[in-house]
Amino acid sequence: MNLKDYIAEVPNFPKEGILFRDITPLMLDGKAYQFASDEFTKFAKEKNATVIVGPEARGFIFGCPVANNMGIGFAPVRKPGKLPRKSISVAYELEYGTNELCMHEDAVKPGDRVLIVDDLLATGGTMEATIKLVEKLGGTVVGLAFLIELSELNGREKLIGHDILTLINY
Amino acid sequence: MNLKDYIAEVPNFPKEGILFRDITPLMLDGKAYQFASDEFTKFAKEKNATVIVGPEARGFIFGCPVANNMGIGFAPVRKPGKLPRKSISVAYELEYGTNELCMHEDAVKPGDRVLIVDDLLATGGTMEATIKLVEKLGGTVVGLAFLIELSELNGREKLIGHDILTLINY
Repeated sequence: MNLKDYIAEVPNFPKEGILFRDITPLMLDGKAYQFASDEFTKFAKEKNATVIVGPEARGFIFGCPVANNMGIGFAPVRKPGKLPRKSISVAYELEYGTNELCMHEDAVKPGDRVLIVDDLLATGGTMEATIKLVEKLGGTVVGLAFLIELSELNGREKLIGHDILTLINY
Repeated sequence: MNLKDYIAEVPNFPKEGILFRDITPLMLDGKAYQFASDEFTKFAKEKNATVIVGPEARGFIFGCPVANNMGIGFAPVRKPGKLPRKSISVAYELEYGTNELCMHEDAVKPGDRVLIVDDLLATGGTMEATIKLVEKLGGTVVGLAFLIELSELNGREKLIGHDILTLINY
């Protein structure tokens, strides 16, 4: 199955000059969506993952099905103000300004083998912050899985030493 | 399995006087999470759903696994500015001000049998707006599924005529 057939290319979104890769046609095709989730699930099994972590909102799209396929838990990474109980946070730099991501303190425990799932590897900033959150809580990151990698943005340089699965490369 | 055992009660979140029902402990328990998703999947099968729709971000938590379990597509409902292609929107009233939800025009087609999944039925405003989006696109809403219902907020009054599954009631 050629997953690229299910990605829509949208010029000038979210701003002029950006070619946005839209995954919603893939999600809307039951077979393509299942195929991608199954590839992530195989990777999770190989890595003996004990918990799946995914940043909101699009990290939930593949992360939640993989957790369910494995019968293991899913821990969300959220923006500030969304998690009701004791949380930790990590700030990271954007092109302009900074962003902050949070996890509940009990979301990951020492000894947990964590697979982090997201839709897109671009500059790697979100993933780098997510890795820091997991490691602060004592978890071991056993792999990173993305539907799409935008190679020219060199996100992998921020993720050296990690085992990375990407299903579609541009 | 008593799913209530996996819901954390957090007083005064997001504001004074509100008792927040936090589903993250349920998501973190692989068996409880799978059990809840399987109940939704049975409901989707009974209703012969052909597509699952869920509002961001927490509608993805159960909606995406159910779509994958069924081998059918998932269409996200998102806040303004998130969907890159031609979209429709519906505005709805909040306690103070209004909110707006969007779907891609091609997310649902006439003849689609749509199951809408979300984590929480509170006042029903989000669900009412989501139903309008689906019906504007020509889809038939065959059921509404929620992990939690807060009965005292009377959300069902906005959803009369629809077949509703809720797994936990307060």
